[in-house]
Amino acid sequence: MFKFKVEATTSGRARSGLLNTLHGTIKTPAFMPVGTLGSVKSITPEELTSAGAQIILGNTYHLYLRPGCDIIQLFSGLHKFMHWNGPILTDSGGFQIFSLAKLNKISEQGIIFQSHIDGSKHDLTPEKAIEIQISLNSDILMCLDHCIEYPAARKKVTEAMELTSRWAQRCKTMWMEKTEMDNALFGIVQGGMYTDLRAESVESIVEIDFPGYALGGLSVGEPKDQMFEIADFTLPLLPDSKPKYIMGVGTPEDLVELVGMGADMFDCVLPTRNARNGQLFTNFGKINIVNSRFKNDTNPIEPGCSCYTCKNYSRAYLRHLFLSKELLSYRLNTIHNIHYYLSLMKTMGTAIEKDEFTTFKRSFYNKRATG
Amino acid sequence: MFKFKVEATTSGRARSGLLNTLHGTIKTPAFMPVGTLGSVKSITPEELTSAGAQIILGNTYHLYLRPGCDIIQLFSGLHKFMHWNGPILTDSGGFQIFSLAKLNKISEQGIIFQSHIDGSKHDLTPEKAIEIQISLNSDILMCLDHCIEYPAARKKVTEAMELTSRWAQRCKTMWMEKTEMDNALFGIVQGGMYTDLRAESVESIVEIDFPGYALGGLSVGEPKDQMFEIADFTLPLLPDSKPKYIMGVGTPEDLVELVGMGADMFDCVLPTRNARNGQLFTNFGKINIVNSRFKNDTNPIEPGCSCYTCKNYSRAYLRHLFLSKELLSYRLNTIHNIHYYLSLMKTMGTAIEKDEFTTFKRSFYNKRATG
Repeated sequence: MFKFKVEATTSGRARSGLLNTLHGTIKTPAFMPVGTLGSVKSITPEELTSAGAQIILGNTYHLYLRPGCDIIQLFSGLHKFMHWNGPILTDSGGFQIFSLAKLNKISEQGIIFQSHIDGSKHDLTPEKAIEIQISLNSDILMCLDHCIEYPAARKKVTEAMELTSRWAQRCKTMWMEKTEMDNALFGIVQGGMYTDLRAESVESIVEIDFPGYALGGLSVGEPKDQMFEIADFTLPLLPDSKPKYIMGVGTPEDLVELVGMGADMFDCVLPTRNARNGQLFTNFGKINIVNSRFKNDTNPIEPGCSCYTCKNYSRAYLRHLFLSKELLSYRLNTIHNIHYYLSLMKTMGTAIEKDEFTTFKRSFYNKRATG
Repeated sequence: MFKFKVEATTSGRARSGLLNTLHGTIKTPAFMPVGTLGSVKSITPEELTSAGAQIILGNTYHLYLRPGCDIIQLFSGLHKFMHWNGPILTDSGGFQIFSLAKLNKISEQGIIFQSHIDGSKHDLTPEKAIEIQISLNSDILMCLDHCIEYPAARKKVTEAMELTSRWAQRCKTMWMEKTEMDNALFGIVQGGMYTDLRAESVESIVEIDFPGYALGGLSVGEPKDQMFEIADFTLPLLPDSKPKYIMGVGTPEDLVELVGMGADMFDCVLPTRNARNGQLFTNFGKINIVNSRFKNDTNPIEPGCSCYTCKNYSRAYLRHLFLSKELLSYRLNTIHNIHYYLSLMKTMGTAIEKDEFTTFKRSFYNKRATG
């Protein structure tokens, strides 16, 4: 049964909590590694667990196209199909349609689009988005929303935000009809970079009443300051008794700032994608493993790091693997980056429990400055 | 200290034994997964061990070019560099020079070649081949030999075979000079498809006296029958007190036949390369995971198989990963194929100990016929 409880609050707005799902309990603040196609690229569920993953994200758009819901249903959902027994949050598919597919038509009814793989024509309605996520046996489903690009004119943002609210109601209705409501459905707040539209969106979405809320349409190309401004403005408007999720964000610095503003959940491809590009996260900042200064470096990526990669391999070896395009490279890099992100979340959770978030934040930035 | 002991013989020529090295003991017959560039492609040393690997092979040519011996020596050799604590056999580099590099000149002295990566010019002499393998801290070193293509004229084969013998003597001298001889150096028998030249090669190589012997120049394009004919003719000529290694071979059927002829050791890229191409080995023959009949197949690759992949994933999932070009695909496939090969070797070892090799062989072919 889905349940959220704030466990600790700080003198600021940062908070920690527990989120119960049918597949396990998640400590918040939580970061969700992205398992686009039913696999967090290059690593196994066991490696995810040992890196500290509590919940992962699956992309509805990708899974709907490949392998298709009929196949995943043979396994009663995504968990057994991909051998991950923990909680799964699925997005609605909307964001990927807007960013990857060829969009044919968007109407009150829903979206008609063409697959980025084979050009085949498909439609997605709020109802269908829920049905697909139910077939994936998702623990946390997301409403279909209308994402728009940055920058966008106020009129366009307003229309998209209003459509998102009407779709949210249809998603809620479908979810109540088709599930026992022991999973969760999150509503998504839109409104672009306009604070008044964000406020309006919060009002209409919260009125529908969801088990959790997300901020969509951030990290879509806007200046970082603006992203923080919108999050800072919008997060306090959401009910504190519900989990608050910032979609598709971000860098380690983003996570620290946003947790400080009261955000509970995050997902982002950054740790996994950067790993495959040889970019590794450390407490002293990001390093690029191809750098020639690592050629003879017998140290691990980050001395003291307890991840499998740092415990067993040197920068020199990882540089060699990456330069040689060895498959093991992507995997060892991914293990480290995921571990880094999840450790950061854990450290923040502990700091919040001890009401030492400000001290943590100072130390976080100090290490980077000396790195 | 290197030592080989035959533990069991059969009514035929198949035998099992124990091979001691400084990094551990190997049960023979043994298959060595190939770790070309200091990594068995896509998998970790822990996964190798749990698939049953006892020893792996490193490619001197590749490692010499990338990352270079100076870097590997910072780790006192390949074991620590790549985090594999078991025995390592290294080839001499010769075969890869003949098959991959641009060959500039071959003389009594050695080989001058250009790197297949950047065209840089290098030379390899028998002495240098040994020095490089010593710097890799190899447990079993191989003599530099002169491999030739198939088919080749008798004159050319004779010259290459004789040069191989002279180089073998220089390798032995260098090895005695530069090591404690607590590792092993294997001599390589050449002679192409000419049985009398093979006999001559055995005589001169065995006269030099090595801790082990290999058959080179097989599986280079000749008909399968001819490969078996040469192996069947040559293997009994080698001293039974020494390990007998067939280089670069082969399919599961090849291994069964050659173990039956008294071969003790093998290496081949087949299980790893095929895995990355979606070709999976089973007791009932090879399957291609892209086949549409696996689309809805909730069974593991091989029901009853105890490998990590078969215990946790279905054919439908593996097909999906492969079609989606997910990195996890290559890895899960590789784990299965390596496990298959190593289990086959183990099964043969047990059959030999019980003097049931003939029964084993019948059952091996029967399963394939009904598959």
